[in-house]
Amino acid sequence: MNAQGEDVVAGIRTPMPIASMPDVMPEVYREFTEIADRLERTYRDVQDVEFTVERGTLYMLQTRTAQRTAAAAVRIAADMVREGVITKDEALQRVQPDHVVQLLLPRFDPSAKGQAISDGRLLAVGISASPGAAFGQAVFDADRADELGSSGQKVLLVRPETSPDDVHGMIAAQGILTSRGGKTSHAAVVARGMGKPAVVGAETVTVDLNQRVMRIGDRVIPEGEWLSIDGATGEVFSGEIASILPNIEDQGDLLQILTWADERRRLQVWANADYPRDAERAREFGAQGIGLCRTEHMFMEQDRLPVVQQMILAAPEASRLGREAKRLSDELVEAPSSRRADIERRLVDTERQLGPARQEFESALAQLLPIQRNDFRGILKAMEGLPVVIRLLDPPLHEFLPDHEELLLEVTDLRRTGSDPSALEKKSELLNAVESMRESNPMLGLRGCRLGLMYPGINEMQVRAIIEATCQLKKEGVDARPEIMIPLVGHVNELNRVRGMLEATAKQVMTEQGIEVEYKFGTMIEVPRAALTADEIAKSAEFFSFGTNDLTQMTFGFSRDDAEGKFLARYVEEKILPENPFQSIDTAGVGKLVRMAVQDGRSQRPDIELGVCGEHGGDPASIAFFDEVGLNYVSCSPFRVPVARLAAAQAVISGSYSTK
Amino acid sequence: MNAQGEDVVAGIRTPMPIASMPDVMPEVYREFTEIADRLERTYRDVQDVEFTVERGTLYMLQTRTAQRTAAAAVRIAADMVREGVITKDEALQRVQPDHVVQLLLPRFDPSAKGQAISDGRLLAVGISASPGAAFGQAVFDADRADELGSSGQKVLLVRPETSPDDVHGMIAAQGILTSRGGKTSHAAVVARGMGKPAVVGAETVTVDLNQRVMRIGDRVIPEGEWLSIDGATGEVFSGEIASILPNIEDQGDLLQILTWADERRRLQVWANADYPRDAERAREFGAQGIGLCRTEHMFMEQDRLPVVQQMILAAPEASRLGREAKRLSDELVEAPSSRRADIERRLVDTERQLGPARQEFESALAQLLPIQRNDFRGILKAMEGLPVVIRLLDPPLHEFLPDHEELLLEVTDLRRTGSDPSALEKKSELLNAVESMRESNPMLGLRGCRLGLMYPGINEMQVRAIIEATCQLKKEGVDARPEIMIPLVGHVNELNRVRGMLEATAKQVMTEQGIEVEYKFGTMIEVPRAALTADEIAKSAEFFSFGTNDLTQMTFGFSRDDAEGKFLARYVEEKILPENPFQSIDTAGVGKLVRMAVQDGRSQRPDIELGVCGEHGGDPASIAFFDEVGLNYVSCSPFRVPVARLAAAQAVISGSYSTK
Repeated sequence: MNAQGEDVVAGIRTPMPIASMPDVMPEVYREFTEIADRLERTYRDVQDVEFTVERGTLYMLQTRTAQRTAAAAVRIAADMVREGVITKDEALQRVQPDHVVQLLLPRFDPSAKGQAISDGRLLAVGISASPGAAFGQAVFDADRADELGSSGQKVLLVRPETSPDDVHGMIAAQGILTSRGGKTSHAAVVARGMGKPAVVGAETVTVDLNQRVMRIGDRVIPEGEWLSIDGATGEVFSGEIASILPNIEDQGDLLQILTWADERRRLQVWANADYPRDAERAREFGAQGIGLCRTEHMFMEQDRLPVVQQMILAAPEASRLGREAKRLSDELVEAPSSRRADIERRLVDTERQLGPARQEFESALAQLLPIQRNDFRGILKAMEGLPVVIRLLDPPLHEFLPDHEELLLEVTDLRRTGSDPSALEKKSELLNAVESMRESNPMLGLRGCRLGLMYPGINEMQVRAIIEATCQLKKEGVDARPEIMIPLVGHVNELNRVRGMLEATAKQVMTEQGIEVEYKFGTMIEVPRAALTADEIAKSAEFFSFGTNDLTQMTFGFSRDDAEGKFLARYVEEKILPENPFQSIDTAGVGKLVRMAVQDGRSQRPDIELGVCGEHGGDPASIAFFDEVGLNYVSCSPFRVPVARLAAAQAVISGSYSTK
Repeated sequence: MNAQGEDVVAGIRTPMPIASMPDVMPEVYREFTEIADRLERTYRDVQDVEFTVERGTLYMLQTRTAQRTAAAAVRIAADMVREGVITKDEALQRVQPDHVVQLLLPRFDPSAKGQAISDGRLLAVGISASPGAAFGQAVFDADRADELGSSGQKVLLVRPETSPDDVHGMIAAQGILTSRGGKTSHAAVVARGMGKPAVVGAETVTVDLNQRVMRIGDRVIPEGEWLSIDGATGEVFSGEIASILPNIEDQGDLLQILTWADERRRLQVWANADYPRDAERAREFGAQGIGLCRTEHMFMEQDRLPVVQQMILAAPEASRLGREAKRLSDELVEAPSSRRADIERRLVDTERQLGPARQEFESALAQLLPIQRNDFRGILKAMEGLPVVIRLLDPPLHEFLPDHEELLLEVTDLRRTGSDPSALEKKSELLNAVESMRESNPMLGLRGCRLGLMYPGINEMQVRAIIEATCQLKKEGVDARPEIMIPLVGHVNELNRVRGMLEATAKQVMTEQGIEVEYKFGTMIEVPRAALTADEIAKSAEFFSFGTNDLTQMTFGFSRDDAEGKFLARYVEEKILPENPFQSIDTAGVGKLVRMAVQDGRSQRPDIELGVCGEHGGDPASIAFFDEVGLNYVSCSPFRVPVARLAAAQAVISGSYSTK
């Protein structure tokens, strides 16, 4: 038994407290420690030993490898290497990726928690089902949690227990609290899967769904009141308790384990980050690059949204009129003289309308350019010397516009009351625009590179912003390494078309700036057809980044938004699927596409850079697969970078990686 | 020159009408016919000869293979075989699939058309851009055409010209009429692609979009008036002219060509038909089976819809309560005695609610059973002795419910006026149900086999109806051959789960009926993952039917509804895609999946029956591909069966089929 393994001593079932044994029975104690040491060396791990002492004789009853907390696991593993009991590889295998997660989860500030306890705010203690600290307004049904959560409010979902019908509410909530169920209840299993704090089986809590209150003893807590839960301890508090993110630099043993992992792993670990502050955090955690910088979050910020909306509303009209003018010009060249006057008249008319529409579009782009340049500058600078993959605008444009249904009701109302004709006109116009952009299946509609092909001005502005920022940084002596990524490519021609535009813009910016900079050009592989034709696509892409979220959606035909709430949880519950394919990659189907694309891509371009930027990049089982198929890196949320470092080393050790 | 080739004589450009030559210059005429015969035998096809006679001497200027109409092509090909000039294979290659389409297109009843002309209803003659007769109410913009067309009204889209922005209106219209453009204009190309009648460049027509009228000379025709167009002649009529479907039995030469095609082709040709009348028509056209009988259209019929809606509204509640009751029963078994009373109380409560919900659901199913049995009986009988693939319910359930937005406006209105509280309550309830079934991307949501797994009662009812109908028919001495098809399978477990239920039901019905019947069990391959794991799936499926519409949607990440209107036409126009992948199969991407699934499926089950039931089954280029990869059959709309017979023979002749 390891001297420093106090955490596990609690696991030893004995009629005598071990701490008092040396004094009372020094002989027996010596014998016990000798045997325990032997057991530990034999089994090469901390042991949970059952023994009994009867009339001065020590009887060893059972020994098995001890359960341990995250902190203990890390410390024990590091110690045992230092003591020469196990190898570094063994240590790396003894620490579970989950342990790393737990050590880095937000936890309550100990002094704030202490204060809360002494203030009598500890309401209940349930079962610790999924670690982490969370707080939010108590909400008693999933629909409401979904509604409030989606609008950016922090909620805690409180239920008697959860079922697959509640999953959308669990997704939207900060944490989950149930009054029934144990560690394997639906709430516990799903919350752990989501990495979301949860306390279950808090039996003193009752939820009254009719009166929309929860009761604990005499205390009545109405919906909307703030609660805090600690999923590692099962504690439930009233009010909000400040939480802190543990500092990785303070955790010496963890840093030691991760350093060993770095020596061993083959996969690089990059991070997904949209802002400089996230990039910095990722770098602290050991990220070797940014695998996905999404530009849409930048567009969503409150002060920019009106300009983005102006751009979106002007784009289709400017594009339509531009094409019409071009068509008429072409027609004019070949038209018989009898028709020329008519065509000329129409051309003039079209160009008259085109002017303002184009100006509206271009003025919005001109306003966005410096903002974007600054965004990119920040993140490129934070990652100095390391690659930053920037994805051009991806989501359907209607995501930036007001909700269709709300607008419809507003317009109906304005029309009925007749109270404000000018507002009616404006809202009607907006409604028309929103209606014209509605789609039956937006996930499979006008988004990704399709946007850039329809409205090239948007791509041009973004590429200009990236290259201008890179030129500026280079002048300042900063080594910025942008990689420009085109989303949702399905056919190599899409890529070639965008590439032509992009290279022209980049070249022009460099000429303007009087400096040459390097950048890479590549694509997401997230549409099944892209994976199937990866050999073609690799001819035009210097890197592939597997977008396994969308690739999973399209390969399974699952819209994640619909599937997780409506049937996926039941599929997993009833073992129709072995697990949620959005959590761990489906190696037989989606993985087959990844494997094909890796082979076909490399066959065309041996030095192609291959990575994954879907959520699977932070999932240990998926990381083992990505190691096996031979990707260059995985990219995950900053918070999961340490997990990925460990998992990548474990993948190498367990030998799943076969050299290509 | 073929004596019966009058249609092509018009192609001979000569200063002298050929008909008068024998009388005026018998010597020259004899010489000319000798040379023409020799040319025809040399080039083995009807020739378009240019000659001139100057001062009694015949000069042959040029000869080339003659253009011909559909009727001429078929007649010439058949004649030349009979005359021994060409082989049957050559004849089969000389007839274009388009020719067959044209001979079977609806055309105006000649007497009705004659009457219309003598009544002065011929308004204009434009360019014949896409053959076929059509009539409908004139509509001047694509949105309105889409709106009226989608609600089941017949419209003709009349535009100055069309652009990609009009495609959704063209899809919804019966036919297209434009005042500008030629045979290669956007309207002409797209209409031909859609197989939709079109007259373009009717230059006497002007469309006044502001006043919403069209003008022809002095005549003013407001939007909504009926027009008829003949896309083969370019004629435009006012009012409606009765059209007839040509009878294939009357077209001896076509029948001859198709008989030769049948001798030559390897692929079987089946048809997609939902009703007995369509199945009969398909059989007349030579279909060798029904490759897709969809059950959803049966559900949509006006008198059944209320029962279907009752089923849909009851299903989720019955399912939820049923699972809850089961969970509580399980819990009760293991609960400590202190909790038993509480659990028992909740179980009783749940079962009390479950009773009515389940009864509601089952009573709807009981009402649908005899209706469905009769549906299946009809189609199985019409196809006696031939296979009929029946697909279990596929579309998302909300397609059978009222439109969400209309309901929302109604409820908002009722709430505001407060005029009818009972209507408000009912509509609110319905709105809630519709809301709970809404999906972000319904194409990738709760549909296909996912429905049957969530609500097994629906599958059970359908399978019972199929097997009962088959048993009845067998007792009557009719050889019915049902094949039960599970849609949207992505994982073999889905198939296994449904199969277990289905076999139990089938067995039970046979016991009840006291008779054994044969049936096959198989699946659509329409989700990319199904194609990727076809070896697994083949273990549980006796047949695969490639649903290439959905497979194309998911492989490209294109929602067809969104893509065709918003960017696909521009992709084709700008040559980003070589053609619309919904018309001709994309062999490099979607086709790769088909090829993999064929090989992997056969490797597990050598006698597996392989077919395609997507629209590609009627497209000649796609048929050549399906022949090459070794499918057993293609299935297409009844109307395209003759085209597919020819195309399948051409595929064999052109040698694209390589034995597996």
